[in-house]
Amino acid sequence: MGAVNGTLAILAGEGRLPVVLAARARAGGRRVLAIQVRGASPQLAEAADVYVRTPLGEVGRLLALLQGEGVTEVLLAGRFSRAAVHGDLAGGDAAARRLLETVRDRGDQPFLSAVASALGRWGIRVGEQLAYVGDLLAPPGVLAGPPPAPEEAADVQVAVRVARHLADLEVGQTVVVKGGAVLAVEAAEGTDEAIRRGGSMAPGAVVAKVGRTQQDPRFDVPTVGPDTVATLAAVRARVLALEAHRTILLDPAEVRHAAQASGITVVAVDAPPLRPRDAEAGRS
Amino acid sequence: MGAVNGTLAILAGEGRLPVVLAARARAGGRRVLAIQVRGASPQLAEAADVYVRTPLGEVGRLLALLQGEGVTEVLLAGRFSRAAVHGDLAGGDAAARRLLETVRDRGDQPFLSAVASALGRWGIRVGEQLAYVGDLLAPPGVLAGPPPAPEEAADVQVAVRVARHLADLEVGQTVVVKGGAVLAVEAAEGTDEAIRRGGSMAPGAVVAKVGRTQQDPRFDVPTVGPDTVATLAAVRARVLALEAHRTILLDPAEVRHAAQASGITVVAVDAPPLRPRDAEAGRS
Repeated sequence: MGAVNGTLAILAGEGRLPVVLAARARAGGRRVLAIQVRGASPQLAEAADVYVRTPLGEVGRLLALLQGEGVTEVLLAGRFSRAAVHGDLAGGDAAARRLLETVRDRGDQPFLSAVASALGRWGIRVGEQLAYVGDLLAPPGVLAGPPPAPEEAADVQVAVRVARHLADLEVGQTVVVKGGAVLAVEAAEGTDEAIRRGGSMAPGAVVAKVGRTQQDPRFDVPTVGPDTVATLAAVRARVLALEAHRTILLDPAEVRHAAQASGITVVAVDAPPLRPRDAEAGRS
Repeated sequence: MGAVNGTLAILAGEGRLPVVLAARARAGGRRVLAIQVRGASPQLAEAADVYVRTPLGEVGRLLALLQGEGVTEVLLAGRFSRAAVHGDLAGGDAAARRLLETVRDRGDQPFLSAVASALGRWGIRVGEQLAYVGDLLAPPGVLAGPPPAPEEAADVQVAVRVARHLADLEVGQTVVVKGGAVLAVEAAEGTDEAIRRGGSMAPGAVVAKVGRTQQDPRFDVPTVGPDTVATLAAVRARVLALEAHRTILLDPAEVRHAAQASGITVVAVDAPPLRPRDAEAGRS
């Protein structure tokens, strides 16, 4: 990312990724303003220099806050339920409702691109999470647990293939498979809920979580942490399959420990690396 | 279908389709043996000449029953939860477990093809539902309610497009969309559960239910009835989109009545007709 000065803002949804980003940015010398638009996180409050909770619907207040703090770079990170975001914007200020109008009939990535464009008009760029957590990308191979059994390896192939289609269709990232049959597919309910629904249908299921073929590295990069493994364990799922080089492994040591403790295999299949957006000519 | 003699067996899952098939076959002069492998249905017991409940796992008993009654044609009809079918076979007799072995790593249609092949080895062919309910296929156009508003028509397009992909991936038939975002996708939980999950996220959702591009007319032809409309109404969904010429509309008058009563639009989009399998040369 090169030398970037000034305050880094993190527009934070739920989960642990915003906390890790804040801690790493501060360790690298940045001042961090964390704006929590969903849920609350004492850990994030502790990791950031400034911590503010404000609903996403108050876009005017949000922009004033960013500009008042002299922010020129913002990261979007953490879980945002699509239904909640739409609800917040629909019930928000005039700018929020205008934003919602411009993104009707779109999936997540076009929606987030529109958010980035809106911020860009205010002189604020959306940065890439990988500039701060690039070293946490999953390497290929079996990352925890025993190698998958042959029938599990076959289910990994089915799950990854279907999940890639779904990610490209802007549907979701997560698919649950057992015995070659797709038990559950994530849409707006989120990864954990899809794992719970599918995994509870049959013990020993395989879960795949993947990104889009053309994954914008600023938004929604697939992220897996100890919580994901705990969700698999709760429904006795057996294998978590990721894409190497394109999935952020939060707290890798804890992921490994949680997987070993519950007999879960974590495996990263080969996949092309995410292309940093800054390296692409002609995109703005 | 031509003149077919002897007893027609219906291997029945849940729902109303087996009842309608039994009534129509009897009205056409066939003797009907209904074998309920999931749930129970007094209506089906009344509509058939003989009604037997037996778990799908007892394949030996099932075959003996079919042969004892001199059955040469069977229809597969009604809802079968994939997880339940797998559970029944896994806990069933030796023939059931052999059947399950041969269909690992497959979607629904290959699984049902394997069932048809197994029956074929016993001299029993799997017939086509459309020979009995072909007149119930949905015509194109708005079948009930006001025409969709422009934003609803846009959601219909998204929902049908995504649902066709999912059907071809052997995932499911049903997708729920609102404002261009996919709220829920059916996998093994079934149509009604997917409608409830997605529809409850936002009022005014659009539901699409479609078949595979290469839909085998013997299995799993998309079917919609008054119950489907009632499920939409319960979560305040607004539009049910089907494919014309490829969707069985059970009790069309009741569907229309239920839709009008709850302000739901039922619309059938253009789609190529289902090809009767008997018309295809070289397939067995």
